[in-house]
Parts: sequence; C-alpha cells; structure tokens
Amino acid sequence: MTTPMPQLMANAIRFLSADAVEAAGSGHPGLPMGAADIATVLFTRFLTFDPKKPDWPDRDRFVFSAGHGSMLLYSVLYLLGYPDIGIEEIKRFRQLGSKTAGHPEYGHAAGIETTTGPLGQGIGNAVGMALAERVLNARFGDGIVDHHTFALVGDGCLMEGISQEAIALAGHLKLSKLIFIWDNNDITIDGKVSLADSTDQLARFEACGWQALSCDGHDHEAIASALEKAKQSDRPTLIAAKTIIGYGAPGKSGTEKAHGSPLGAEEIAAAREALDWPHPPFEIPSEILDQWRIAGLRSGSRRKEWERRFAEVDAETRGEFERRMRGDLPSGFIQAMHRFKRRMNEERPALATRKASEMALEEINAVVPEMIGGSADLTGSNNTRTSQTLPITAGDYAGRYVHYGIREHAMAAAMNGIALHGGLIPYSGTFLVFSDYCRGALRLSALMGIRLVHVMTHDSIGLGEDGPTHQPVEQLAALRAIPNMLVFRPADAVETAECWQLALEHRAAPSILALTRQSLPTLRLDEHDENKSARGAYEIDPASAEARVTLYATGSEVEIAVEARRQLEAGGIPTRVVSVPSFELFRRQTAEYRRALIDDTSIKLAIEAGIRQGWDEFIGRDGLFVGMTGFGASGPGPELYRHFGITAEAVVTAVNERLGEGEDADADAE
Amino acid sequence: MTTPMPQLMANAIRFLSADAVEAAGSGHPGLPMGAADIATVLFTRFLTFDPKKPDWPDRDRFVFSAGHGSMLLYSVLYLLGYPDIGIEEIKRFRQLGSKTAGHPEYGHAAGIETTTGPLGQGIGNAVGMALAERVLNARFGDGIVDHHTFALVGDGCLMEGISQEAIALAGHLKLSKLIFIWDNNDITIDGKVSLADSTDQLARFEACGWQALSCDGHDHEAIASALEKAKQSDRPTLIAAKTIIGYGAPGKSGTEKAHGSPLGAEEIAAAREALDWPHPPFEIPSEILDQWRIAGLRSGSRRKEWERRFAEVDAETRGEFERRMRGDLPSGFIQAMHRFKRRMNEERPALATRKASEMALEEINAVVPEMIGGSADLTGSNNTRTSQTLPITAGDYAGRYVHYGIREHAMAAAMNGIALHGGLIPYSGTFLVFSDYCRGALRLSALMGIRLVHVMTHDSIGLGEDGPTHQPVEQLAALRAIPNMLVFRPADAVETAECWQLALEHRAAPSILALTRQSLPTLRLDEHDENKSARGAYEIDPASAEARVTLYATGSEVEIAVEARRQLEAGGIPTRVVSVPSFELFRRQTAEYRRALIDDTSIKLAIEAGIRQGWDEFIGRDGLFVGMTGFGASGPGPELYRHFGITAEAVVTAVNERLGEGEDADADAE
Repeated sequence: MTTPMPQLMANAIRFLSADAVEAAGSGHPGLPMGAADIATVLFTRFLTFDPKKPDWPDRDRFVFSAGHGSMLLYSVLYLLGYPDIGIEEIKRFRQLGSKTAGHPEYGHAAGIETTTGPLGQGIGNAVGMALAERVLNARFGDGIVDHHTFALVGDGCLMEGISQEAIALAGHLKLSKLIFIWDNNDITIDGKVSLADSTDQLARFEACGWQALSCDGHDHEAIASALEKAKQSDRPTLIAAKTIIGYGAPGKSGTEKAHGSPLGAEEIAAAREALDWPHPPFEIPSEILDQWRIAGLRSGSRRKEWERRFAEVDAETRGEFERRMRGDLPSGFIQAMHRFKRRMNEERPALATRKASEMALEEINAVVPEMIGGSADLTGSNNTRTSQTLPITAGDYAGRYVHYGIREHAMAAAMNGIALHGGLIPYSGTFLVFSDYCRGALRLSALMGIRLVHVMTHDSIGLGEDGPTHQPVEQLAALRAIPNMLVFRPADAVETAECWQLALEHRAAPSILALTRQSLPTLRLDEHDENKSARGAYEIDPASAEARVTLYATGSEVEIAVEARRQLEAGGIPTRVVSVPSFELFRRQTAEYRRALIDDTSIKLAIEAGIRQGWDEFIGRDGLFVGMTGFGASGPGPELYRHFGITAEAVVTAVNERLGEGEDADADAE
Repeated sequence: MTTPMPQLMANAIRFLSADAVEAAGSGHPGLPMGAADIATVLFTRFLTFDPKKPDWPDRDRFVFSAGHGSMLLYSVLYLLGYPDIGIEEIKRFRQLGSKTAGHPEYGHAAGIETTTGPLGQGIGNAVGMALAERVLNARFGDGIVDHHTFALVGDGCLMEGISQEAIALAGHLKLSKLIFIWDNNDITIDGKVSLADSTDQLARFEACGWQALSCDGHDHEAIASALEKAKQSDRPTLIAAKTIIGYGAPGKSGTEKAHGSPLGAEEIAAAREALDWPHPPFEIPSEILDQWRIAGLRSGSRRKEWERRFAEVDAETRGEFERRMRGDLPSGFIQAMHRFKRRMNEERPALATRKASEMALEEINAVVPEMIGGSADLTGSNNTRTSQTLPITAGDYAGRYVHYGIREHAMAAAMNGIALHGGLIPYSGTFLVFSDYCRGALRLSALMGIRLVHVMTHDSIGLGEDGPTHQPVEQLAALRAIPNMLVFRPADAVETAECWQLALEHRAAPSILALTRQSLPTLRLDEHDENKSARGAYEIDPASAEARVTLYATGSEVEIAVEARRQLEAGGIPTRVVSVPSFELFRRQTAEYRRALIDDTSIKLAIEAGIRQGWDEFIGRDGLFVGMTGFGASGPGPELYRHFGITAEAVVTAVNERLGEGEDADADAE
C-alpha cells in the first residue's frame, strides 16, 4: 500500500508533534495528530503567506486558538521553511529559551500571529484581525488589503464565554472573510465533551449570523470543499471538522488519554506501525519535506504579485500604508498634543477627566487616522466617540468606531487582534470596575507587549449612586499588578492629554486610562511642553520651604492633596504634593529621580480612593494612607468621599496626629 | 375608561419607580416601567414566597439579573409587604445608608436574593440556584425541596459571555425548573440593540438545549400562558417578552432616553396623563396596595402548607435539613481535620499541595455531605474529585460533582448562586491564572460575603512547561486586593488541611486555595491541634538565637526559606522563617501579635514566586524580595526557579549583601 502524498504530509505533522512531546516529556500530542489533515489542507492549498517574508502585510492571518496543541503550528512552520523554526527548535520543544514554548508565544518566532493558550482568546483575536482587515481595506482598497483570517478552535474555545461575545460581534458585522475551523474531536481534559456540554454548535453559530458547515476532518477533499464554500460566503463561517484526537495512535486516539501527555514509547511505536511511518524521530523524508517547501514557495509567489501591485500605488498612499504598518505615529501628533495642553493651561477648565479625554481624543483622532475607537455599550459615559469616528457597520467598514456591545472580554481580545494585525491603533471604553471582565485579554496584551488603549471611566466611589458593584476599589492595584501594563490615572485635563500621549508613544505596552465621572479643576498651571506625566510621578505643588510632609495622590485625589497642602501650609507645615499618574513609569526613572520623590525624611501620606496595596512603594510601611479599606456604597459621590473619610480634613488630621507623635515616630509606629 | 386592576398594579410599580428615580436624581426608570407587567404577573400569579418569612427555604427564587432596574424589585417588595422596604426606603432610593441601593445589594433587605448590576452575573447565579434546588431535592425529596428559579434578564445579560457559559451548562443539565424572562426591549445604553447585535436569541437558547418562547411583555395573559408552558417543560425555558422600555412615558418610551436617567418632571407628568395615574408620588391607592398585599398573603399560604409537611418529616432528616440551611458544619468536622493533620504529621509525606488538598477533601467530603465540588474541566489537575463525589448529570442530581466545562466565569457565578440558595457548600477547581477569567464573579462573592471555596492549582512558575500564559505571577496580589476575599497559599499538607478548615469555618467570606502542581515536603512537624494558619502568618521555623534575619514566604517558597535559613544559621546568622498562608487573616490579628512578626529590627526578606506588590506590608519598602518581576517562561519548573533566581542561594546572597551594608542600612537604603 502506498500512502498518498497529502496524507504523508499530514503524518509529518503527526510525528514531529508526537515525537517532540515525547522528547519534552510533556505537552499535547492529541490535537496536532487529530488536526494534521486540516492543517495540511489549509496551509498547502488555501492560506496565503510567505515563509521568506512572514510579516508581509497582506498575508492571510492564521490564529491557533487552541494553543495547547502548539506543536501543530511549530511543525507546520518548520515544514514550510519559516526561518525561526529549524528542526533543532522542534527538538527543544518546551525547553527554557527555545522558540517553541509550551504555548505559541507571539514574538518568539515569525509565523506565530498571536499568543494563545488561555482558551477562547484566539477567537477574539481572530475577530479583531478580520475587522482590521476590512477597515484597512475600506481605506486602502482591494489591491493593498484583501486577505482572510482563519482560526483553528477547539471545544474549550467554544465553551468559554468570550467566544459567544466574539462570534456574536463577528456575525453582526458580517465579517465574511473570517473562517473558523473547529477541531470537533468530542474530547476535553475531563473526558468526553458530553460530560459537560450538549450545545448544538452549528445552530448556535447560525443563530449568531454565521454560515455553519460540517465535514470529515480527515478527508482532505471534504475539508477543501468546506473551505471553498467558506470563502464564498457573505457571512463568517464555522467549519465543524469532525476529527479523532490523537489520530493514528491506536491505543489512545479518540480518548482524553491522547490530549495532554506524551503518548509513551510503546504507543508512538504502535502509531508508526499504524500509519506506516518508519522514519526516526525528527527526520522527515526529503520528498515529503520538499512538497511542504514547494507549498510555501507557491503561496509566497502571491506576495510578489502583491508587491508589484503595491509598487504601482501612488507614493502618498504607499507611504501612509507603510507608516501605519510600521506603527509610527504621524508627524502632526506631538504638535497637536502640545497645542491641546496649552489650551487647557489657558482655559483651566473644570472637567471630568473622561471629558478631558474626549477633548484630547478629538485632537488625536484628527491627526492619527489609524485610531479606531469603541465602547462596550457605554459610549456616552466613556466619552470615547469623537466627530471623526463614525460607526463601523455590517458591510460598511469605512468608519472608525466599534459598537462592541456589552462584551468587555471580546472587546479587549478583539483589540489585541486589531493591534496584532497592524495598521490600526485600537482604543476602547468601559467602566474601570469591568476591567475584571476582561482581565484574561488584558493580561495577554501585556504579555505580548502590544499597543492599545483602554479608556476606563467611573474610576472610584466618585461615581456615586450606582454603588459598590460599580465602584472600583481594588482595580487600580489589580491592574498595576500586571507586568508591562501601563496604568494611568491623570489628575486633570493636562495630565489626561499627557497620559494619552504616553499611551500612544509606548509601542510595546498596552495602556489603561482610569478616568473620573466627576469634574476636577485644572491643577497643572505651568505652561510648557514637557510631559511631566512621563516621569510617572512628579512634584505638582512644591512646599514653601523644605517639606515636612509629602502628599502623594492620583487622579481625583490630587485635588484633595492640593487642598490639604493649602491647609497644612496655612498651619505652618511646609508640604509638597506629588502627583502619581503612573507607578510603572515612575519605576523606570533613575534611582536619583526616584529618591528625590520618596526618600526624604518628610512624613509621607498617600491619598487614593482605592485600597492601599502597592502604595508602600512610595510611603513605606509606616506611611499614612487615606483611601478605601473595603467596598464602597450607594449614595451621592461627594457624600461617599466624606463617609469614607477621603477628604482634605482627614489628611490634615492624620498629618497633625503623626506630627504630634513626633516626626521620628515613623520608625517605631505600629 | 377604567383601567383593569392588574394594569393598575403594574402602574403602581411604574410610578413608584419613576418617582423614586426622579427624587434620587439618578437611576433607571426604563426597565421598571417596561417590565412592570411581567413583574405583576410573575409575583401575583406564579411566584411562591412569603413576605412574612422571606427566608423560607422552599420559596421560589427570583433573580433580578438586570440589576440596574432595581426600583422594579424595590417597588414589588414594598407593594407585597416585605418587612425591610417601607415607603420611606423607596423615597430614600440611592441615598447613603438606605436599603434601596442603586443596584440590589444582597443583605440590605429581605427579598433581595443576590447582588446584581454587573451584567450577566444573575444568569450564572440563577443557574447555581436551580442546580442547588435539584441537588437538595435529590437528597430531601419533593416534600421539602421543590421550587422554581426565575430570572429577569436584559439584553446586556445576554450579550455578556458569562451568559453563554451559564445557559449551556443549564441546558446540558436540563434544569427544567429554571425560567428566564428576557426583557426584550431592543434598547441598550448606546441606542438600539441592533447597533451591536443581531443574534437570534431564541435559536441560540434552543441550540443550548432550552425551550424558547415569545410573548408580548405587556399582555398579562400572554405572559401567564408562557409561564405556564415554561413550568411544564422538561428543559429550562427562556421567555422572550417583548416590551417597550419606559412604557407609559410618551416622549421617551422605546428609546435609550428612558434607560438610565430620570424622566424629568414634564415627562413624568405626561406619563401620569397617558396611564391615567392621578396619584401623587409615593402614594399608592389602598385598593391597589391591598391587591398586592393579598397576593403576598396568598403566596405565603403555601409556606404554611410546607411547614405542615415539614413537621411530619422524621426528626433526623429535619435536623439535617435545618443544619444545612443554617450553614452550620456537622459535628464531626473538626475531629476529622485534626485526625488528618495528625496523620500528615506522622507520615510527613512529600506532596503537591493540590494532592494534599485532595486528601483533605477526601476526609471533609466524608463528614460534610453538603460539599458539592467541581472543576472547569481540570478535574485531574485540580484534584477536586473524591470518592464521595459522583458526577451530577442531566436528570440525576444525586451526585456531588459538577463538570462545569471550560467555563470558569459561569462556574464562579453558579457557585455564588449555590451558596446563596443555602444547604450546600460549593467548591471548584481551575488553574490560578484563570482566576482572571472569573474575577467578575469572585468580586461579588466577596461583596456578598458568602462561603465558597475555589481550589486554584498550578499556582506559580513551578507548573513549568506550559509557560507564561499559564503561570500566575500577579494573580496572588490581584486576588489579595479584593476586599473580604480569603486567599490561602499553604506550604505543605498540614497547612493545606488548616486552610481548608479555615475556608469552611469562615461563613462570611469566600476563599481561594492557591496550590502547587509540584511536590513539597512536610514542613510543619509539631504535633498539636492548634490551627496555626488561622493567624495568617506565624513562625514556622525559629531562629537559634535572637533573629538577625526574618524570612517570610508562602506556599512552595516556604521550603526555600527553610533551606536558606539552614544555610544562614550554618553561617552563624540567626534566622527565623515566617509562613504566611493568609495576608487577610494576619491583618485581623492583634497589633501585638502582628508587631512580633514584622516589627523587630531583623533584616526582612520575603520569598514568593509572584510579584512584590503587597509584601511591603511585611518587609517594608526597604525589605528584600526574592520573586518575580515580570512574566514567566516555558521550561521545566525547577529550571525556571533557578532562571528567575528564586532559590535558597539567592536568598542567602541577598541577605549577606545586606549584612555587608550593615544591618542599619535599611533606613537609608535606596
């Protein structure tokens, strides 16, 4: 018997994967073996890409949502000849420092379009990529942007709630160039899917506006036929490809035993027998490897066609497209920000920072056309829409605003996809407390180090009557805890503009802007272009003499600090106020700069309408803190500030008590 | 024209709500006005409850998932004569200290079954309550437990991803006594639902195994007929009740203008005109109020029937049911825990704490029959199943284990519902990193102060090869940040048992057990019954003389601290080790106790394979920290510990460096 070449090519994936998992001593062989046929058909007959130029902008995007089956992706990248994944990397699967991490890590190797593993995230990323493609197509035309987004999704991806948010959004926006292939293998970690789920997935997707198809996931022609049909749809498509997990492993296939552990030497040997694969581990016969490499070359030829087309485009459009794909901000950006800051300095308005953010965005969106906004159904509360951002609707993608619906998690994951796609800078809006609903995606933004901005308003008890369910108390601390996440809490309109500027200038980190519902006075009255917020913390109001007291505060509480300073100074106590718009950026300053702000001998007191956690970095364990110790309450905002004792008077009292103990009481205070 | 009484009764809700929102100056009149007919039919003709004994165990549960429309619930509770909500409370809507908070707050007033507001949570709660009802029914029979769970859900609830997780689970488990009424008003905050969603909700629910019905939400007989049909179903039921938001307000009804702000004096006057409601604000004509009160009495009569039945049950069963509903632990519990601890002390096994947890659970589940476990498809990894916990399946609810599926958020929200229902203590399993997926529900557990336990395993880089997407780094800090959340990280089998005991004994707080994948030695070698973990932090390994160094650690890092102590002591440096299983419980100790552990003059160093945030509470700003500063990596766990420098050697080096600077260097260290 002779095995047909496409089958051999799939078997190459199967054994590279199973052998790599075996060598690593851990990993997931079941998915790569089960989905090898799907991957072979998809990569050799459908996907447009170029291993020689993996970041070519008009390539199809492939999202490997079921990231635990990472060896599938690594195998394919190796077989196709992608530069970063040689056979040595395959052999080093899951070893420290390898490019072949346990789950695909964005940035480790070309061809990994996004970091996956936490289930369902890839679904949201793919929706964002497909949306980005349409939005850029609307701006640059079919000649420059015209590609598909494919995602391989597993049962777990489909069970996670984020999937519903994402597929409902994709269906609503009729993202017809989005194609999901569901590795429908009936198995999860606990056993059969039927232990926990009875959902008719095809009917569910159809209810969300998708085309839903089925096929035998081991029949190459059936897979191809479904993919053809998917490409012709006017809606996004789900292909339910029925597969056998661990296909080829006679003792474990079709069961959870094939899912998440090495097959074992005996079982692998039996699989070699069953699939007639006599080759040693990590050796792919050249005639099979050649066929894979040819597929890579063939697909790559489309890149050359695109480059010919692109070369004929007018220089201005070409330059604009290239600038956007590089991620450079346009030249007018800085000037616009300076202009806006000067205006705020002159006008000194009393504004909620969410309103100041809207005004800053009005200027930014005018000069940064790649900004694409949105909100999880809180547009009027988050102030995220400006005059430039018309809504994106099904079939008309020329707008710049996404009504994400009440779907914070998919919003954040889609934004990851938009940012990863390139050419656009996504920003969003929700309430700060609902950062809890999208942390799964926020963490991945930070881990991948991508640029996007979440506008999170109603950032404290100051929001008032909606009560403790809506009042963030621990969210600032919890968000600051995420590595590489820039959490900004500006104190007035000037700082708001500065933080927006920083958020957009930091290309390797996501940002959160925590903004108030309530009005705040303009506190930054100096007139120059320096971005003081870039320091993370800085003296916003100096002491009249050498400071005996330093008050630290963020956002709406800087106003309280300034008033407390006034009262303390009136009582003869030299007091300075340090505004702390970003802990993270402060940490990046020189030791000398940091020392000047936190290492003097003054009494230290921090004010923030949140919990203390994290503030000891500024005030020390014996510092004073005026803030929250538990959840908020329902009532008018100003009353709540008094009720919870977050007032200038409370600050003055605390300082005076400490002074009464003697300034040197710090050392042996409780 | 005369308005029929049921219509008048609905109008009473409408005007109480609109007038209360008007008086408060903020709130959501649209939903109560739109859903007033639904509420009238549901509460006067279907729901079983007793305003005179609101906590009667076999009452129907009503979950108001669309919590922003809280005035609907408050109006109904007032009209029915519930004890806590008099007309004065209605007038004090949204005022500080009132029982009528902006969103319904569990514990503020009898009749509020759960805290809602964050959208979609009520859906998860309702699924948990309906599941609890079936599980208790399987144990205690129809005579004692036989009631329905109703939820009023909005468009936002249905868009949130958690809804998909919850409805798929409910459909799978065929929770036929669960009935959702969807206030299908086509409006969200941004405008029409069609701005962001095109989902065919009926088809979606049917795909998830639900019966799906439609009705006119203003036609009382149509609503009643749908509810009748729902009660006869063998599946859970969705009733899509088409309503007009702000029904009766002529200028704003049917638009987002009616959603989230007071209608204004003029519009309310026009509504009074339109609905022929001449009564002043907060005055309900006695003939209408009487009809509501009669409905309350009528429903209450069913409670008396139940009590008669219950009195005839054998004393043992009655006692057991009452004990469970009170939430008391059975008498054998403490003894079982002591026995287990003694055994661990004797055997001194090397165990992963997830395995120790499984062994402890084996003992607990044997004596605490109300424990109901589960996992989000990680049963074998979380070690949450014991010999007593057979799976709960559709139609057979006698088991004690829920295969929640890959649905962390719904799992946590359903557990809130199970705990709120009473009679059961839910515990779950997932990876610690996926606490990010369920924070929305975790926060509400803490806010409501209810008892449940999340087993969260794979709690550090120690999990190894799965890499940074699966390695918690900031999660411990982020969870400790939630007020009233007990985060436990035990160091060995003894502490694991102690933490389990504490989690179950704390009735007014949820708990998280952060547990290792990798094995740890038994470190607690003393033999007595005192629960040392109850202190939150305690000296696990004393210094040989007055301590010059204090090492603080949690979980798997206590082993490192103990080894570092050995090395330091060998070098002549008296060193003590403090294990910190719970920050929160430590904070609750006396000042004297806390001082003894943190306020001496020793050099302080904390070890935790997570970020530093929060640790300054123990070590001060100038303390030393050995842990993580960013995300993890993929590789074998022991290698990762070395790679990130979390080793006894690193601890010893850091201490020696500090000693080299002079112990008093603390004060002016950088």
